[in-house]
Amino acid sequence: MSASKSGSALRHATHLSDLGVARFNALLERAARFKQDPPGAHLAGKLLGMVFFNPSLRTRASFEAVMKRGGGDAIVLEVGNGVWKLEDRDGIAMDGDRAEHVREAVPVLARYCDALAVRTFSAGVSDADDDRDPVIGAFKRFSTVPVVSMESAREHPCQGLADMLTVRERFGATRGTPVTLTWAPHIKALPKAVPDSFLLSAAAAGCEVRVAHPEGFELPDSVTHEAARYARESGGSVTYTHDQAAAITGTRVVYAKAWGAATEVGLRHAVDTRKPKADPELDRIRNLREWMPTAAHFQRAATDAVLMHCLPVRRDVEVAAALLDSPRSAVVDEAGNRFHAQRALLDWIFNGD
Amino acid sequence: MSASKSGSALRHATHLSDLGVARFNALLERAARFKQDPPGAHLAGKLLGMVFFNPSLRTRASFEAVMKRGGGDAIVLEVGNGVWKLEDRDGIAMDGDRAEHVREAVPVLARYCDALAVRTFSAGVSDADDDRDPVIGAFKRFSTVPVVSMESAREHPCQGLADMLTVRERFGATRGTPVTLTWAPHIKALPKAVPDSFLLSAAAAGCEVRVAHPEGFELPDSVTHEAARYARESGGSVTYTHDQAAAITGTRVVYAKAWGAATEVGLRHAVDTRKPKADPELDRIRNLREWMPTAAHFQRAATDAVLMHCLPVRRDVEVAAALLDSPRSAVVDEAGNRFHAQRALLDWIFNGD
Amino acid sequence: MSASKSGSALRHATHLSDLGVARFNALLERAARFKQDPPGAHLAGKLLGMVFFNPSLRTRASFEAVMKRGGGDAIVLEVGNGVWKLEDRDGIAMDGDRAEHVREAVPVLARYCDALAVRTFSAGVSDADDDRDPVIGAFKRFSTVPVVSMESAREHPCQGLADMLTVRERFGATRGTPVTLTWAPHIKALPKAVPDSFLLSAAAAGCEVRVAHPEGFELPDSVTHEAARYARESGGSVTYTHDQAAAITGTRVVYAKAWGAATEVGLRHAVDTRKPKADPELDRIRNLREWMPTAAHFQRAATDAVLMHCLPVRRDVEVAAALLDSPRSAVVDEAGNRFHAQRALLDWIFNGD
Repeated sequence: MSASKSGSALRHATHLSDLGVARFNALLERAARFKQDPPGAHLAGKLLGMVFFNPSLRTRASFEAVMKRGGGDAIVLEVGNGVWKLEDRDGIAMDGDRAEHVREAVPVLARYCDALAVRTFSAGVSDADDDRDPVIGAFKRFSTVPVVSMESAREHPCQGLADMLTVRERFGATRGTPVTLTWAPHIKALPKAVPDSFLLSAAAAGCEVRVAHPEGFELPDSVTHEAARYARESGGSVTYTHDQAAAITGTRVVYAKAWGAATEVGLRHAVDTRKPKADPELDRIRNLREWMPTAAHFQRAATDAVLMHCLPVRRDVEVAAALLDSPRSAVVDEAGNRFHAQRALLDWIFNGD
Repeated sequence: MSASKSGSALRHATHLSDLGVARFNALLERAARFKQDPPGAHLAGKLLGMVFFNPSLRTRASFEAVMKRGGGDAIVLEVGNGVWKLEDRDGIAMDGDRAEHVREAVPVLARYCDALAVRTFSAGVSDADDDRDPVIGAFKRFSTVPVVSMESAREHPCQGLADMLTVRERFGATRGTPVTLTWAPHIKALPKAVPDSFLLSAAAAGCEVRVAHPEGFELPDSVTHEAARYARESGGSVTYTHDQAAAITGTRVVYAKAWGAATEVGLRHAVDTRKPKADPELDRIRNLREWMPTAAHFQRAATDAVLMHCLPVRRDVEVAAALLDSPRSAVVDEAGNRFHAQRALLDWIFNGD
Repeated sequence: MSASKSGSALRHATHLSDLGVARFNALLERAARFKQDPPGAHLAGKLLGMVFFNPSLRTRASFEAVMKRGGGDAIVLEVGNGVWKLEDRDGIAMDGDRAEHVREAVPVLARYCDALAVRTFSAGVSDADDDRDPVIGAFKRFSTVPVVSMESAREHPCQGLADMLTVRERFGATRGTPVTLTWAPHIKALPKAVPDSFLLSAAAAGCEVRVAHPEGFELPDSVTHEAARYARESGGSVTYTHDQAAAITGTRVVYAKAWGAATEVGLRHAVDTRKPKADPELDRIRNLREWMPTAAHFQRAATDAVLMHCLPVRRDVEVAAALLDSPRSAVVDEAGNRFHAQRALLDWIFNGD
């Protein structure tokens, strides 16, 4: 078994840095090849333990589908819902509602399964806390089998892989393709794992990446620095702006995504469309509603430009319903590619390069 | 792939009208044949996506059993329980607790699965709303793979198929067999999907159907009219009465089932056995308790008459416990036939006529 | 199909008495053999219905893993969570929140599955109630297929089998091996199924069993009497003491486990570490904290002695975290052996001796 980039002997896949630019692009190739020519029972005898700390629809269904269609199988566990709540902090007496520690739960599950897949959202504490990614970090630390992310505090790497597979399919290649990640409004402050992963993945795939967001919604420095390194390695580029129209001009992908503000507490709860009040600060926030992508936003884009979004999407809050229902929308194809991206990733985890 | 009666190119099975009388009876034949001579791995490589908006025991276990015993597999998703709540209404800004719209969720699941099975109970608004059957209607509209009902607002077609398989087994044939659907008391107003489907299925199978219920508990006109059409086509008959004893006289099946009142708000909560009050209206309601089938009710029935019920049943509220525990009861056989009925139905969906 | 010791024609496995001493030890042999030489698709075509009245991690994952790795499959149902709440009491009108009776639910599930596995914790009423074990008893009574316990009010037989497999692996044999079951503190009174099963299993496997607990925490007479019978048959022994240090002296296994007091209401909530109060009774309870196993407790034990615990364990409440993280700890191996023990047990249930 070959070592992963993380230096561990196990092929973990929780962050793009576990893969690196070369392997990321090789997995894109593998996903595209498998989509044309399905690999059959390539996962025969393999059992994936899926551990959810948060809800899921696409991720759960697509991972289960990959395992079952590949001749393997999956076990689904929902922490706190039929399964004991798990503690991941060290050095505390466990006298609260968390009955089990990851130090026991993770190695035990690793005895029953060939790999562990984990979903654990950001605790919303800080970018630094997301960078530390404590829960999925504990899984990697205590597991004796590979750990794959189904979205954690910092990244959603399978989404990023599926996104780039979609770009590649639509436009023949990712390298040099102009793609725009634009902030979008929401009723609450969402985690940054998806925008982080889109940025990192598009940079690793060599896209000409443009990121547009209002002031105060900067993505974490650790992520933008990492994206810059990937762009240098892949021949891509990344630019940032507060001018959404400029970022969309000539682009082939409008990737809409809500996320929470970088620091300002007043913005962490973003754009509440339900409670209008006469408040200058809230007025400013409500102006952000104009960031919601509509058909009109595509006038400056390339003629073949598409809308992308990771889903779930709140219609007429985050993205215009009419745009989602138009031929511009690639969101269902994009979600469908979760299956193909994860099939390639799990094939690598279980069967190697 | 042959077209279904609904005019769509997909073999949906959400209402008896998707099948029609001829196919319904052909599926009964197939179920009986499969029960004698199991079809082996007839569902190999097939993946069923099961989506539950409401609880289930039999339906969930029997559908999973059909897929797994047939060489295929299933994915189980519970909306609002580990899976995002789903919106099915159009034209509203999604700023509430429903994070995802069926317009995205359904086509996405259709990318991962070969068919979708859905359970979604009546919202209890009106018979007209049940007729529209909005949630399962949205699944049919937005899915690119066949949709099968695990009970929706208007019908529970797999229950109806299993019911007729049970009648056929007990009495050799369905055509001309006298069967009585009788209203029964309950602590709350239940949906009409099961009585609707028993009525439609028995009519389609050519039974001599008698329906007995108190005044005010009429089944919807749309259903009774559809049943009349099926009876004409199958050579069966349907009659309605408020006289339970008359309806049971000479019958071979007493099918007990609670359902809510047609229109009167005061009756929608039916027969509350727990809160007796001195109220003339409530007195009338409490008199309805005599509708609960007991062994005594069978004195007028055929000597070989059996009790049927879809389960779950509230003992000594809806049906007498002693009757359920007697040899008269066919309820466990009936539930067992859910497996065989659904095996035939899924075989048709995946493998055709 | 050979009859089980219980006199039924079905191979139930809900209590050690269903197996008896000879078969228990034969299953240990089978588990050890399968661990060396996996049996392949020994469960092909078998479907296990798993019914949970209570949460689970290890049990759920390991049972699913056994079925899926053995070529069979499992259906998971959580009572009251997507599945109707189940009534197990007879003779009451079902007008409460439990919509279905085990008299219907169990025989119906038995139509779809080849065996039923059930988890149902003690109601905390009394030792006599635990002895009666009403819920799993109802499953055995109404099922037409074998019933296996995933822990019930009185016992957790698969845990006991895995525990003895662990002892056998570590020390070459169970017979004559000194093992110590010691009470440990907790934030609440826990059921006795696990200590009961460790005691019964160690006695049946011929260990030199020592049980240490504070006054007032006696295990039920019915269990200690049964353990004495097994020890006589197996050539083992069982002794009881309130002196933890004496019980550990020379032992090779320190099996730590919290359980509730035998009778005193004041002790049923055991050792609350969170609410210190100036109360003589509570002072006495807090003194019980010294029963928590630490590395120091092993000074009197055999040099190769190990810590065992069924998990989940509350670190620094029930067992010292440092001890769990030390090479003394066998808890992960022990949990891993759940898979092997249950593989042997299910092989016996489905394939016989």
